[in-house]
Amino acid sequence: MNNILAVGSLAFDTISTPSGKADKVLGGSLNYFSLSASFFTGLQLVGVVGEDFPADHLEFLRSRGIDTKGVSTAPGKTFHWTGEYGKDLNEAITLSTQLNVFEHFNPQLPEAYRDAQYVFLGNIAPELQLSVLDQVRKPKLIAMDSMNFWISGKRDELVKVLPRIDLLTINEGEAKLLAGESNVVVAAEKILTMGPKALVVKRGEYGAFLFSGGEIFSAPAVPIRRVIDPTGAGDTFAGGLVGYLASVGAGLEKDALRKAVLAGSVMASFTVEDFSFRRLQRLEKQEIEMRQKYLLDTIKV
Amino acid sequence: MNNILAVGSLAFDTISTPSGKADKVLGGSLNYFSLSASFFTGLQLVGVVGEDFPADHLEFLRSRGIDTKGVSTAPGKTFHWTGEYGKDLNEAITLSTQLNVFEHFNPQLPEAYRDAQYVFLGNIAPELQLSVLDQVRKPKLIAMDSMNFWISGKRDELVKVLPRIDLLTINEGEAKLLAGESNVVVAAEKILTMGPKALVVKRGEYGAFLFSGGEIFSAPAVPIRRVIDPTGAGDTFAGGLVGYLASVGAGLEKDALRKAVLAGSVMASFTVEDFSFRRLQRLEKQEIEMRQKYLLDTIKV
Repeated sequence: MNNILAVGSLAFDTISTPSGKADKVLGGSLNYFSLSASFFTGLQLVGVVGEDFPADHLEFLRSRGIDTKGVSTAPGKTFHWTGEYGKDLNEAITLSTQLNVFEHFNPQLPEAYRDAQYVFLGNIAPELQLSVLDQVRKPKLIAMDSMNFWISGKRDELVKVLPRIDLLTINEGEAKLLAGESNVVVAAEKILTMGPKALVVKRGEYGAFLFSGGEIFSAPAVPIRRVIDPTGAGDTFAGGLVGYLASVGAGLEKDALRKAVLAGSVMASFTVEDFSFRRLQRLEKQEIEMRQKYLLDTIKV
Repeated sequence: MNNILAVGSLAFDTISTPSGKADKVLGGSLNYFSLSASFFTGLQLVGVVGEDFPADHLEFLRSRGIDTKGVSTAPGKTFHWTGEYGKDLNEAITLSTQLNVFEHFNPQLPEAYRDAQYVFLGNIAPELQLSVLDQVRKPKLIAMDSMNFWISGKRDELVKVLPRIDLLTINEGEAKLLAGESNVVVAAEKILTMGPKALVVKRGEYGAFLFSGGEIFSAPAVPIRRVIDPTGAGDTFAGGLVGYLASVGAGLEKDALRKAVLAGSVMASFTVEDFSFRRLQRLEKQEIEMRQKYLLDTIKV
């Protein structure tokens, strides 16, 4: 088993979707990523929470084999995101972002974390992602997520991270924004010249593209009858993706990478079925296996 | 070889896309469908054109093994559609529809057409689709296309056609409109209770869903670097789909149907690479085979 060192946000979310509202529920990229990946492998988390963060949630993460020694508590409040989704559940509208303790986050890796073989840089400021990379020794695989906020606002810093990573996972709109191209294939090819060895473009309910080794893999999404809340789907996807790779000790080998993308699709399909990561909290390993089988059948010819 | 009896429109199109403009070029569902299907099997066309329709185009169709005896010429002008696409190439905006001779179209099948084993009811008024069904004897497979114009405007008539067909192909927005459901899976399941035995939901650049035998097949689209004009992609898709089924003499068997959907994806990917059906006109059988192989590799795990 190869632990994943993961950095990202631990947050409160207030979310409205056509299915209802969730007020100040637990969220943040690191929560979704680590809960998802914990079905495949162990994790070491680096993050920051405020004094209002529930201690029993960190306890819950530990009960899932997740090491939280790298999660510090800072004076003040936890990061709080408020957003809503219209009928188009593929895109969130941010209503407010209260960074709170996240504003002065400076990730410090416990010594035991520095030999991590798998590193996931969640969606945080690119200079913090770089700082994490400066603290790790010789990882086998570095994966990274980002978002339009950093692509537009901290482009120069972001572009410095790209040559240092193996695998970038962003969504389709972000890929087009990063490349300045309106065609997703052209955008992907351009991004691959900027540093990452492989790229996963997440397309929400339409699945994902994997660009690697000069080839394209078109991964389907699991067809879902009722999407309650898409928040965290992308991070959950990344958790399945990197979690699978770590569980089999793989790098960017074609076969493993394609299976990993499908694992990402499967995990994301659970998250959207309820608010927050409630569905992941009650998820059974057996349900994952059943849905993996089902997803494979949807592309069988 | 099983000929397909196909009915639909033969038209002029005036189209603007971000890539340019095409003025009064040849189009119409029957042109796209039949050119696409002609790579797989023979066809018998039923349609109407005006006195301004170029005779050499009908000659060209015949040179591709397409029987045009059922295409009549009526006094007046040919159907003329004007539309444009914005940056979102997945949806056309209709600027004008001049029905012209199409307004009084009354499909009459030559006697030799009435024993057709495969029937494709292109996107025309549902009462005309019914009239064609009343004239055929005992087809093995009936496929049908439609659009929001008929779903909204002639719903009662459309609903009468559905129990008489085997396979419905419509796009995602049309499926949601027909079912009155915002989730595509729920919409598809509802449509299947309205009559058709199988349903293909076309999703543009995101591929297509096949709902059949209680199972879902998630077909990818061919990743395309530059989309010039999406007009006719859906009809071209249907041409590959029904053309493939006719070429192997299949009905709704799972294996054949899934391959047929992929054939539809492959054919549609060519059409969008140029205005009108120019790409289909210069297409070589070998290019189809190469792209089929390529598409299969994009879903290989």
